[in-house]
Amino acid sequence: MERDEPAGSPAEALGGRAAAPRVGILMGSDSDLPTLRETFAVLEELDIPFEATVASAHRTPERVAHYATTASERGLEVLIAAAGSAAHLAGVVAAHTLLPVIGVPLKGGAAGGLDALLATAQMPRGVPVATVALDGAANAALLAARILALKDPQLRRRLEAYRQRMQARVEEADRRLQA
Amino acid sequence: MERDEPAGSPAEALGGRAAAPRVGILMGSDSDLPTLRETFAVLEELDIPFEATVASAHRTPERVAHYATTASERGLEVLIAAAGSAAHLAGVVAAHTLLPVIGVPLKGGAAGGLDALLATAQMPRGVPVATVALDGAANAALLAARILALKDPQLRRRLEAYRQRMQARVEEADRRLQA
Amino acid sequence: MERDEPAGSPAEALGGRAAAPRVGILMGSDSDLPTLRETFAVLEELDIPFEATVASAHRTPERVAHYATTASERGLEVLIAAAGSAAHLAGVVAAHTLLPVIGVPLKGGAAGGLDALLATAQMPRGVPVATVALDGAANAALLAARILALKDPQLRRRLEAYRQRMQARVEEADRRLQA
Amino acid sequence: MERDEPAGSPAEALGGRAAAPRVGILMGSDSDLPTLRETFAVLEELDIPFEATVASAHRTPERVAHYATTASERGLEVLIAAAGSAAHLAGVVAAHTLLPVIGVPLKGGAAGGLDALLATAQMPRGVPVATVALDGAANAALLAARILALKDPQLRRRLEAYRQRMQARVEEADRRLQA
Amino acid sequence: MERDEPAGSPAEALGGRAAAPRVGILMGSDSDLPTLRETFAVLEELDIPFEATVASAHRTPERVAHYATTASERGLEVLIAAAGSAAHLAGVVAAHTLLPVIGVPLKGGAAGGLDALLATAQMPRGVPVATVALDGAANAALLAARILALKDPQLRRRLEAYRQRMQARVEEADRRLQA
Amino acid sequence: MERDEPAGSPAEALGGRAAAPRVGILMGSDSDLPTLRETFAVLEELDIPFEATVASAHRTPERVAHYATTASERGLEVLIAAAGSAAHLAGVVAAHTLLPVIGVPLKGGAAGGLDALLATAQMPRGVPVATVALDGAANAALLAARILALKDPQLRRRLEAYRQRMQARVEEADRRLQA
Amino acid sequence: MERDEPAGSPAEALGGRAAAPRVGILMGSDSDLPTLRETFAVLEELDIPFEATVASAHRTPERVAHYATTASERGLEVLIAAAGSAAHLAGVVAAHTLLPVIGVPLKGGAAGGLDALLATAQMPRGVPVATVALDGAANAALLAARILALKDPQLRRRLEAYRQRMQARVEEADRRLQA
Amino acid sequence: MERDEPAGSPAEALGGRAAAPRVGILMGSDSDLPTLRETFAVLEELDIPFEATVASAHRTPERVAHYATTASERGLEVLIAAAGSAAHLAGVVAAHTLLPVIGVPLKGGAAGGLDALLATAQMPRGVPVATVALDGAANAALLAARILALKDPQLRRRLEAYRQRMQARVEEADRRLQA
Repeated sequence: MERDEPAGSPAEALGGRAAAPRVGILMGSDSDLPTLRETFAVLEELDIPFEATVASAHRTPERVAHYATTASERGLEVLIAAAGSAAHLAGVVAAHTLLPVIGVPLKGGAAGGLDALLATAQMPRGVPVATVALDGAANAALLAARILALKDPQLRRRLEAYRQRMQARVEEADRRLQA
Repeated sequence: MERDEPAGSPAEALGGRAAAPRVGILMGSDSDLPTLRETFAVLEELDIPFEATVASAHRTPERVAHYATTASERGLEVLIAAAGSAAHLAGVVAAHTLLPVIGVPLKGGAAGGLDALLATAQMPRGVPVATVALDGAANAALLAARILALKDPQLRRRLEAYRQRMQARVEEADRRLQA
Repeated sequence: MERDEPAGSPAEALGGRAAAPRVGILMGSDSDLPTLRETFAVLEELDIPFEATVASAHRTPERVAHYATTASERGLEVLIAAAGSAAHLAGVVAAHTLLPVIGVPLKGGAAGGLDALLATAQMPRGVPVATVALDGAANAALLAARILALKDPQLRRRLEAYRQRMQARVEEADRRLQA
Repeated sequence: MERDEPAGSPAEALGGRAAAPRVGILMGSDSDLPTLRETFAVLEELDIPFEATVASAHRTPERVAHYATTASERGLEVLIAAAGSAAHLAGVVAAHTLLPVIGVPLKGGAAGGLDALLATAQMPRGVPVATVALDGAANAALLAARILALKDPQLRRRLEAYRQRMQARVEEADRRLQA
Repeated sequence: MERDEPAGSPAEALGGRAAAPRVGILMGSDSDLPTLRETFAVLEELDIPFEATVASAHRTPERVAHYATTASERGLEVLIAAAGSAAHLAGVVAAHTLLPVIGVPLKGGAAGGLDALLATAQMPRGVPVATVALDGAANAALLAARILALKDPQLRRRLEAYRQRMQARVEEADRRLQA
Repeated sequence: MERDEPAGSPAEALGGRAAAPRVGILMGSDSDLPTLRETFAVLEELDIPFEATVASAHRTPERVAHYATTASERGLEVLIAAAGSAAHLAGVVAAHTLLPVIGVPLKGGAAGGLDALLATAQMPRGVPVATVALDGAANAALLAARILALKDPQLRRRLEAYRQRMQARVEEADRRLQA
Repeated sequence: MERDEPAGSPAEALGGRAAAPRVGILMGSDSDLPTLRETFAVLEELDIPFEATVASAHRTPERVAHYATTASERGLEVLIAAAGSAAHLAGVVAAHTLLPVIGVPLKGGAAGGLDALLATAQMPRGVPVATVALDGAANAALLAARILALKDPQLRRRLEAYRQRMQARVEEADRRLQA
Repeated sequence: MERDEPAGSPAEALGGRAAAPRVGILMGSDSDLPTLRETFAVLEELDIPFEATVASAHRTPERVAHYATTASERGLEVLIAAAGSAAHLAGVVAAHTLLPVIGVPLKGGAAGGLDALLATAQMPRGVPVATVALDGAANAALLAARILALKDPQLRRRLEAYRQRMQARVEEADRRLQA
């Protein structure tokens, strides 16, 4: 099973070379890559194979539609889409698939990213997007992990361990404060 | 020429039965129809043939993509797209055509329609949408008319007359105030 | 299997009397019930057993913590939490479980519900909430369905049929417009 | 025809020395010039002759009124107006002409430019402004090009080629990501 | 002196029939009249002659420019301009006169009138507008009165009496509460 | 002790006729009274004597200053100030006393009350206001009770009982839902 | 007359040493001084004597009340008050005088200064503040000049010359662009 | 009594080593420490013993619940909770105690901290949080001091002296301006 094997280097994970990516990540521009490296890092820490793609809802709409339409049959289980300003990417992806789609609104537009948050979250009835916080790249990975863990007990245990490390970090910070 | 002939009744104009519609109007839901009747009314007053369609960027994405992709070859010259909340419709249409696309953000979502205004206007570099005011259905028609008048001197004259009637209404309101 | 059996009447589904609810719905107050009936209706239409509970993050915090902590062992797979204003409910639930948690921000507070949207979506790193639109009660159910369908091919087919009915409604609206 | 000839250097294009400018650009202050150089660059890439002017709706209102009133008779076909804060420039221009007017709201005022976006977009019924995104200088040029291409098949082909270069850049970014 | 004589009926004051109006009021549309009646009422209570005009910055720009340019020579001392949405009226007036201009942003546009407030207040350096609160029609009159009272001791006394009546009303409200 | 005696009827509590009011409530206008009746009701339910006054930070500034300056020597322990729009009342009161001051921002101004919330909460360093939610009249009373209970064990017990009744209402609502 | 004599150095103008200051400037903190130097510069350019004071509505309320109450009898004719965040200074000043009060909201608080703009502008009926733009320090001086020029023909001429210099600067910027 | 003895060094105060801390400070992350040092500094200047803890409402919910539930019996009298973005910390603390809870919303999230302000202030009926300004760390300490001074006349005198020093600083700033 893919979770018992190491996920390989990030470079391998990208481009679909890892066996059986379970999460597909779309970004509107490669300028969004620094933020999304947090998503990559958390998925790797949780040993979840993934792939990543640059595709723009407005500049390459057919590319996005094709990616989303074929995602399920290619074995992907959760899609993550990150975009800023009039952030349509997650919505367009969700319109072309029945997989769960996680939207990551990105800061940088007018009103401090509020435009991206509203454009991602305020989807019409019928086509849901699971919106995380502005620049919430790590949480997008953790939400994908919670979804995948529903049918993957080993991932569930890794997620539990991740949570304990997170709590330990808070407690360690408190110990430093008291020292 | 189509402008010398009467545009026909509104019912005829809808559904493409009028000869050679020049403006194509998309709305995300037929609940937007009351607002868009203002667009219809101004286009009719200016004798511009048009057609109108219900198509949702999220619920029927292929329908929207097909409409926009074929709009130019079907003789349409300007497209108007109206939607609320995470108002992606105008952006999706603009991504599938090179015709000028006018976006009408609709009130009713969170933050008094601000979400729709931002989602329509804040398009990324490369794919412009000509955004009018919230619920600016009449101005969408007038903007389409200004564009079409560039190569249609008779429409230009009708637009000039429209402006004079508008100014006369302001002056008439002032006369009532002074009376 | 539970999906082959009828979900029972809504009244039965509530209160956990239906066999094996898969989705747990929390609301901060029973005044939120009218909005959440949309969630109930979509889950029923998709034949997904669920339970619903009134529990307030602020007024009954132990109740919420206990519900979330024991949700997984009681067989629940997805949690939906709806709240308004300083909408902490979804975040508190997500802090006490590793199941996917869907947050439904509710209108009615200051700034047209923007407070609820921000309080639900802007979660810190480590504890994700899948936020849907303001009052997005139907989409919360559809997002839960997309998640559950990952391991439930029959639900996947019901979801596909739901989408086709939704598209048919748009096309029917268009036909009425053209008539 | 002017489109078969090179547009000349930017310095020549400015000041109306190029034969037959088709687009007139107004900016409220020469401090807006860095943003508007994007507009210049796209118009030049598309071989559309233009002129640019500094004129303030508030500090030199007669200058703006005269420019807009005479724009059509001087052969201009589309006007672009860029301003920040209480961004009245595009609206004042639109009040004095029947040409299509594109408004570019500029960042930098209160609320991250939201004031400029609202002041540009929220025009009253009767006087439309085609608003693009905050600092959307490139898209203003592309929108002008879409409008002018309606009666200029060669420009239409250049616009199509521009779109293909843009898509190729997205695909190239994706290839770099996969490498 | 005009302040020793009765200001006449409201109907007489409008239309410039009263001798020597000192305050000129502009409104973008006669639909703004109900709000502005508060301005009229306070000016009458303070015995300040005024005139009122309907003129739109966008629909009748020459009319506004002419009114503002000639206001001082016609004896007006303070101008009040009320408008909603992209509320350019006060700014345009201030651009054509050196008299003090008071702007009254009106509710009803997007974002609860915030657009009107920002468009009125966020004027560029060089052309000030004295902005009062949203729908602050009474305060516009009181601000005009404070300005005119600088050279009119009798008006100053009437303003002082107005303030005392206002304070008495607060004290009377308190007495009712204590009763 | 005053807490062993009944607080008397609401009418008696108002106007300072009750022995030893511990909480002083200021409102900018008697139109705020319907909202503040919630404050009265909670204080009465908790048996805390109070007085209420109409006084405006802007219309009767000396009255407010005098009230706040003398509040402590008159035996008051906590002050509650409620106001809308540019809600200065709580801040002005806090500037004239060293007692804890609770600010209740009221809805109804521009931006859905956001102006009142910001004007109440965003106090400069040195003069704190304890701000509760928009229209948070009941919570203002409960916050006052938490403060007073620090030195009043009997009030502490009444507050504990209040919390239990509140929790019981949530549980009762849940029982109705399950029924 | 004071306007025929030079205003003296800024240092002299401050502190009331210049004969007969006509404008009084209040700032909540000397950290606001850099912004207000623009006010000083414009008043000096227009030869209007002024004085400036640090006084906080919240930290030194009696000082502010005393300043405002005695301003008129000390010969001041216009007051300018600048403050940020919960910007109460202008409102408190206006509550204690009948002179025209100009409010300058300062950036730097939450929401990019929007809190200061709303707290300054949204005054209740009865106590007007003439609000200028965020950080609108120069326009505060120009608004004071417009008010004072009503009874000072020489100042009116200096203001007219100022406007011409401003227009010349725009025209000079345009010439540089065309060069 | 603890107020007659020196509070000891800050390091001693932290970690509960000082005898009888009266104020408990919670922060969601030790990255909030720089802002909260202002709280520490004011409490020390006023000689109020305190303790500080890192505890996250979302990452360590049991830790927060346990801290708040036992705070009163451990002798704490006021709690201060600081958090950013979806700032639930103060609300969760208030849900688990009957002590007064002061919430400090922290800047840095979307919309310039507005999300933190709304999430802290907009608490539902029944569970009050005393919200101070964004990053209002000093005022949180001063508000705690006002509350504690109700039963501590010596603290009341220190608070009075603090206020006089604050006023003296404003007057000193004014003297520097006049110099």
